[in-house]
Amino acid sequence: MKENISVRFIEEKDEEEFFAPLLIEGLPGIGHVGKLVAEHLIQELGAEKIAEITSLYFPPQVILGVDGVTRLCNNELYHYQGDNLTCLFLVGDFQSTSNEGHYHLSSLYVDIAHRFGVKRIYTLGGYGVGHFVETPRILGAVNQISLKEEIEKTGVIFGEGEPGGGIIGAAGLMLGFAQPFGIEGVCLMGETSGYLVDPKSATLLLEILCKLIGIEVDTSNLHERAAEMEDALSKIAEQEKGQEEELSYIG
Amino acid sequence: MKENISVRFIEEKDEEEFFAPLLIEGLPGIGHVGKLVAEHLIQELGAEKIAEITSLYFPPQVILGVDGVTRLCNNELYHYQGDNLTCLFLVGDFQSTSNEGHYHLSSLYVDIAHRFGVKRIYTLGGYGVGHFVETPRILGAVNQISLKEEIEKTGVIFGEGEPGGGIIGAAGLMLGFAQPFGIEGVCLMGETSGYLVDPKSATLLLEILCKLIGIEVDTSNLHERAAEMEDALSKIAEQEKGQEEELSYIG
Amino acid sequence: MKENISVRFIEEKDEEEFFAPLLIEGLPGIGHVGKLVAEHLIQELGAEKIAEITSLYFPPQVILGVDGVTRLCNNELYHYQGDNLTCLFLVGDFQSTSNEGHYHLSSLYVDIAHRFGVKRIYTLGGYGVGHFVETPRILGAVNQISLKEEIEKTGVIFGEGEPGGGIIGAAGLMLGFAQPFGIEGVCLMGETSGYLVDPKSATLLLEILCKLIGIEVDTSNLHERAAEMEDALSKIAEQEKGQEEELSYIG
Amino acid sequence: MKENISVRFIEEKDEEEFFAPLLIEGLPGIGHVGKLVAEHLIQELGAEKIAEITSLYFPPQVILGVDGVTRLCNNELYHYQGDNLTCLFLVGDFQSTSNEGHYHLSSLYVDIAHRFGVKRIYTLGGYGVGHFVETPRILGAVNQISLKEEIEKTGVIFGEGEPGGGIIGAAGLMLGFAQPFGIEGVCLMGETSGYLVDPKSATLLLEILCKLIGIEVDTSNLHERAAEMEDALSKIAEQEKGQEEELSYIG
Repeated sequence: MKENISVRFIEEKDEEEFFAPLLIEGLPGIGHVGKLVAEHLIQELGAEKIAEITSLYFPPQVILGVDGVTRLCNNELYHYQGDNLTCLFLVGDFQSTSNEGHYHLSSLYVDIAHRFGVKRIYTLGGYGVGHFVETPRILGAVNQISLKEEIEKTGVIFGEGEPGGGIIGAAGLMLGFAQPFGIEGVCLMGETSGYLVDPKSATLLLEILCKLIGIEVDTSNLHERAAEMEDALSKIAEQEKGQEEELSYIG
Repeated sequence: MKENISVRFIEEKDEEEFFAPLLIEGLPGIGHVGKLVAEHLIQELGAEKIAEITSLYFPPQVILGVDGVTRLCNNELYHYQGDNLTCLFLVGDFQSTSNEGHYHLSSLYVDIAHRFGVKRIYTLGGYGVGHFVETPRILGAVNQISLKEEIEKTGVIFGEGEPGGGIIGAAGLMLGFAQPFGIEGVCLMGETSGYLVDPKSATLLLEILCKLIGIEVDTSNLHERAAEMEDALSKIAEQEKGQEEELSYIG
Repeated sequence: MKENISVRFIEEKDEEEFFAPLLIEGLPGIGHVGKLVAEHLIQELGAEKIAEITSLYFPPQVILGVDGVTRLCNNELYHYQGDNLTCLFLVGDFQSTSNEGHYHLSSLYVDIAHRFGVKRIYTLGGYGVGHFVETPRILGAVNQISLKEEIEKTGVIFGEGEPGGGIIGAAGLMLGFAQPFGIEGVCLMGETSGYLVDPKSATLLLEILCKLIGIEVDTSNLHERAAEMEDALSKIAEQEKGQEEELSYIG
Repeated sequence: MKENISVRFIEEKDEEEFFAPLLIEGLPGIGHVGKLVAEHLIQELGAEKIAEITSLYFPPQVILGVDGVTRLCNNELYHYQGDNLTCLFLVGDFQSTSNEGHYHLSSLYVDIAHRFGVKRIYTLGGYGVGHFVETPRILGAVNQISLKEEIEKTGVIFGEGEPGGGIIGAAGLMLGFAQPFGIEGVCLMGETSGYLVDPKSATLLLEILCKLIGIEVDTSNLHERAAEMEDALSKIAEQEKGQEEELSYIG
C-alpha cells in the first residue's frame, strides 16, 4: 500500500463544487447512534457520495455486498446542496483499529473540512450507560465555550464534565483538531444502553440536530433502518468473531 | 532489516519469463482449505518456485526443516507453464501478524500480479461454520458483478451477503486491490468446521477451480496430503503456544 | 497528524525566558504520587504554563472540562521563576499508550530540558507494594553514583536494587536519556499501595523534594487535592472501561 | 529518540580491533539457558564489553543496579581475544517487545557480525518441554546442511524437525539472516522445563559448545550463577507484573 490513508474523489465530480459550511460526522460507535442519524440524513436528503477513504488503519478485510461483490472497507464523504442547507457527511464501515490511526484519520478529516470551507463540525455519537434508558438525554460538548449557549437552548444537556473521561475516537478528536483552525466543533451524544443499535436515542438526537441545522426530516422509518442495521451488524460481529479466530489462525 | 518486505527472485530465472494471465492464491487460513488446494496443484502440475517473500510482518522465527536446516518463514511464488494453463501460485507459511502488514503484503502481491500481466486472480479460502459439514458448499465472491454468472455456473453459491462481515486477510484484500487495476478477482471459499485441515472441502473446491481454469488434476492423494499438513500444523500450533510463552518470557 | 509529537509553546511567551537549572517531572503513575506532588507545587508556587505537548502516543480521545469544553489530551510544561528557585515542571493527563511512544516522548523531554539549560531532573513516582503502608518510605535512584550521598542525607532510601526490575515510563527513561547529556537525574518514589491516589505518600515525598530544592511549601491542602484527583480519576477510569468497549466496538 | 536502534561503541576502543571469526549469542529466552552459558563464558574468559545497543524495541524502562544507579536496558557486545579463541558475545537484558523489533535487531546483529569478519554464529537457547527433564538433550539446528555432521559428532541431537514449529527470536532469526552472507549458523538448544533458570541444561550445553569452539572452561560455579540469576529474574518478573499494571495505569 503506497499510502497509509488514501482519499479518492469520485471521478466525475469537480473538487471545487464541494464547498460546504457544515460537516456532520456519523462514524460507527456506541449504539451506532451517530451512524444511524447520519446515514438517515444522507438517505432522506439524497446527498451524493463524493469521496472514498481507504486505509491500513481499517480492519484487513473486504466488505461483501448482498450481490456478492467485494470492496475494501472505507469511510465515505457525502455532499448535499439544498435550498436551506449545504453540508458534508462523513460516514463509514469502521473507525481505526489502532490509536495512531485514530489520530491520523481524524486529523485528515479536519484538514479536508478546512479545505472545503467548513465552519462548523457536528460529531454524533452514543453515550453508553450500560442499562436501558426510558428517555435518553442528548449530551453535548463543544470546542469553544461560546457555542454552549446556542446548543443548550435546543435541549442538549451539558453535564458537569460528563462523560467524565472524555470523548474517544473521531467524535472527540475531530473537535480537538478543529480548534486551531477556528472551526466550531459540537459533539452530540445520545444516551443509550450500548448493546444494540438504538433508534430511540437516534430519533431524539436527529430532532435536535435538525433544529440546529434548520431543516425538517421525516423520522418515521428510522426504526426500520435501525433494525436493518442491527441485522447487518450482528452479521459483521459474528464474522468479526470468526475473524479474530482466523487472524490468530493465519498469523 | 532494510525493507519491511523483501521479494527475492530465484537467481537463475529471468523475470520476463513469468508472464501469466492467472494467479491462484492459497495462503494459510481457516481449515487451510486454500493452502491445501494451491499446494496440491503446485505439486501435481510441477510448478516451479520463482520467488520468496520475507517480511517483518511474518512471525519472528525461522522454520526448521526435517533435515534440521532453518530458513526464514516466507511466502512463495510459483510459476507453471503448460499447454492449457499458464499460471502463478502464491502460497506460504503464514499471513501477516499485523493489520498493517495484511494491507502492505496484499497490495504488493497485486502489484506483482499486474507486472506479470495477470488478468484474473483466484483467492482460495475456507468459510468456518463452527460445526461439521456433511456436504460443504463452495461460496463465492467477486470484485466485478460481471464475473458472477460465469462462477455461479460451476456450482459456486453466492449467498446474500454471506459471509456477512466480509472476507479477511489476503483472500479478501487482494480482490480489493485488484479492482483499480481492472484485474478480475474471484474468491472461492469451501465451507469447513474450521477446526482441522479439511480435505473434503478442499476436494470440492479443487474440482470447481479445475473447471474454471480448464484443467484436470488427480485428487486421490489430497486426503493424504491433508493428514500430513494437519500433522505439521499441529506441531507448529504446539510450538506457537510455546512461542507465545517464550515471547512473553524474553520480551 | 503531521507529527507524531507536537510541542506548542504558548504564544505570548518568548522561548528564551525559560532558562531553568531544574526540571521536575510528575506525570501519571502508580498512586499518582508524582502527579499529585508536581501539580501541588505548580499550584502553590503559581508556576505558569509555557507549552502543551500533544501526541498520537496518547489515548485517542479528547478531555472534557466541567464547562463542557473539549481539548486534546496532552502533557504540559510549566515554568516558575522565584527568588530561590527557577524550575520547569512536566505534568499531564497520560503517559504514552505504546512502548515506542514512551521512548520518543522521554527522549524529547530530555532534549527540551537540555535546550533550556537544565542541570538536574527530578522524576517523581510511586512504588506500588500492593498493601497499605503505615509509614511510606521514599525510595531513590540516580543516574550518577556521585548523587547518591546528597540524596540519602534527606532520608531517601536506596534499597539494594529495589525496585528490582527497574523503573518504567518517563520517570525511568528520562534518567537514562539525561545521562549522555551529563544532566543529573534523581528519581524519588513514594511507597504506596497502588490502589488509590495517595496523599500520605505524596506529603512525605513533597517534604523531601522541598528540602532538596530549598523551598518551603504549605502541604495542608494536599489531602483535599488528592480527594479531588481521586474523584476525577475514577471518572476517567470508568470512561476508560467504556472506552475499551467502544474501541472494540468501533474498530 | 533519534534512531529506533542505537549502537554505541565504548569510546576508548578502536572498532578495527574487533575482528572475530566467531559470534556467540546468549540473549534471554526459555530457561535462560543461553543467557546463562554466554554470561558464564564472558566471565570465565574475561571478555571485554565493546558496545551497548539501546532500542525502543526494548521495554520502556531503566534497569536499577544494586548501587541505586540506573541505565537504559540494553543488549551488549563483548569481545574476547585469546590464544585459541577470538570471539564476540551478544548478551543483554531483554529481546524485542515487538515482532518487528525482533526482525530489525537480529538483522542488525548479523550485519555487525559480518562487518567484524564473523564466519560462524552460535545461537544458544532453551527448548521448553513443560516438565522436569532428568538428562536434558541438546538439540541442534543449522542454516546449512553441510554443518550438520560436525555438530552431530559432539552429541547434539537433530530431531526430525524438532522443535516442530521453528525457532523464535534472535536465536532463530540470526541464523536466517546469516544465510545470505554465507555465515555459518548453528543453534544449540538445551532441553529444559521452561519454569526456572536451568543450570543443569546450561552445563550440558556449555560442555558441547566448548568442544565445538575448542576451549576448556570451569563449570563449577554455574549452579551458583544460575541461583543468582534466578533471584534477579524473579525480582524483574515481580516488577514486570507491577509494570504491566503501571503501564495500564499510566497509559
